[in-house]
Amino acid sequence: MGTVIFENSVSLDGFVAGPNDGPGNGMGDGGMRLFDWYASGDTPFPLPGTDMAFQISRASAELLQEEWGKLGAMIVGRRMFDNAEGWGGHPPGGGACFVVTHSVPQEWVREGSPFTFVTDGVESAVRQAKQVAGDRNVSIGSANIAQQCLKAGLLDEMLINLVPVALGGGVRLFDNLDGASYDLEIMQVVEGIGVTHLKYRVVR
Amino acid sequence: MGTVIFENSVSLDGFVAGPNDGPGNGMGDGGMRLFDWYASGDTPFPLPGTDMAFQISRASAELLQEEWGKLGAMIVGRRMFDNAEGWGGHPPGGGACFVVTHSVPQEWVREGSPFTFVTDGVESAVRQAKQVAGDRNVSIGSANIAQQCLKAGLLDEMLINLVPVALGGGVRLFDNLDGASYDLEIMQVVEGIGVTHLKYRVVR
Repeated sequence: MGTVIFENSVSLDGFVAGPNDGPGNGMGDGGMRLFDWYASGDTPFPLPGTDMAFQISRASAELLQEEWGKLGAMIVGRRMFDNAEGWGGHPPGGGACFVVTHSVPQEWVREGSPFTFVTDGVESAVRQAKQVAGDRNVSIGSANIAQQCLKAGLLDEMLINLVPVALGGGVRLFDNLDGASYDLEIMQVVEGIGVTHLKYRVVR
Repeated sequence: MGTVIFENSVSLDGFVAGPNDGPGNGMGDGGMRLFDWYASGDTPFPLPGTDMAFQISRASAELLQEEWGKLGAMIVGRRMFDNAEGWGGHPPGGGACFVVTHSVPQEWVREGSPFTFVTDGVESAVRQAKQVAGDRNVSIGSANIAQQCLKAGLLDEMLINLVPVALGGGVRLFDNLDGASYDLEIMQVVEGIGVTHLKYRVVR
């Protein structure tokens, strides 16, 4: 089976989005700075499934190539889905995207949609995503889902794209963990431009 | 003038000590894990001013050698001073140590003491420490002091020894910053064993 890996850009003070995030302000106040490194270098990296291309360091591009190349399915929370306004129907990665939610947004339910709305929790979402992904990886995009996976022992790896900014507030990556501690192992450190990629294995 | 640099081990979830820190539990619950990397390698690094020697990776030792070699004075908060029980009179680094406090612990006031107790705030402490340090660096040991320096525009650099553990609570490095954001620049990334050293310049 593939690996369940959280991947996202994170500020030095631990936020994946700034304060006051919501539709129209998807990354929260100042949160777009987390993506400054997407335009920090000379090497193009076309983001699979989208029309976007990053211009990043060669080292970052090689890492993303490797990671996105192994991607089989993605899981996000409803908040990220709403904030991104469903990526206009084209979630990054281009594969199946499972959205964990309490209620299904009927306007998004249509044939051929990349989205599956999962209303029976994160374990179900992981099970379904793994089934679709087969030997490929399941990427977790939302901090909230990563937290639930961590608590449920479902998270294998974390790829933190650490950005040298302190946002001062917002959506914390490590939150709602009920004071539990977790050990990780450093798998890989990649120096990009304006970003440090830190890949960890969750020790269980 | 020398550089004012915060240096400390920090958990992946942003804590410099675990919950319930205090005298007798200086690093808080589970916080000693932040120092696991002190015994992670083969290269000895005798900690200046103390009887302690780390056994760390060569890369870590070279970095610490460089950093501690430039050290001219240290500033800590009263909480760290009390938690460390004054390091038995021998603060790490072996140089002058300025303790920012509201009241002077008279039992620690004696001739030839490495400690200077500063009761008129962090700006005064930095000024005094810089004077003593001359061309050498001033190291900030406490998160609380680093926060005050950051807010006052007195912090030049941060050397974060990022440890792959989530402590789940404790003393946050980035806290009490009144929601302000800060930009940093990556100066250096060093891969140790059980630690990633991340050195940043604070952009002002």
